[in-house]
Amino acid sequence: SCYLIPNKMVPGDSNKECTDLKGNKHPLNSRWQTENCDECDCLEKEISCCSLVAIPVGYDKDNCQKIFKQEDCKYIVVEKKDPNKTCDVSQWI
Amino acid sequence: SCYLIPNKMVPGDSNKECTDLKGNKHPLNSRWQTENCDECDCLEKEISCCSLVAIPVGYDKDNCQKIFKQEDCKYIVVEKKDPNKTCDVSQWI
Repeated sequence: SCYLIPNKMVPGDSNKECTDLKGNKHPLNSRWQTENCDECDCLEKEISCCSLVAIPVGYDKDNCQKIFKQEDCKYIVVEKKDPNKTCDVSQWI
Repeated sequence: SCYLIPNKMVPGDSNKECTDLKGNKHPLNSRWQTENCDECDCLEKEISCCSLVAIPVGYDKDNCQKIFKQEDCKYIVVEKKDPNKTCDVSQWI
């Protein structure tokens, strides 16, 4: 899933860089990855970001919990009682 | 929606702080907010994070796009052709 972050435009000034949510600057047309696994592009008018992470939505929420594996950019869903056991996931978005 | 980030445990060492996805350290039992609007708690065994942001899922994806408003921790959905016009959203998750 993707979303936009509009660049703050200075009138009369053409945009040569983008400022991300952390305040870091990126050159026009560059691409970077955030620590929460969004892949972002600096465009003329906006930053376009798309998440690399599939979100588990169909699982037993009473007995299972999701764990974010940053190194793999993915969630795993495990039992609350025994995190060594994975839970079935019927739907990812 | 919430998720966990397990703390890397050092055997024999009791956990007095958490290291977040950016590599920043937080004291045990502290709470902070990330730039992408997750609220996170440093717990004994893990970081527990919950998103403060509702994600629009039911809208006209051909003609509309979502824009992240970091200052309000929310998405707005606007027409691609005319971003001044908002689009109807039938479902948020």
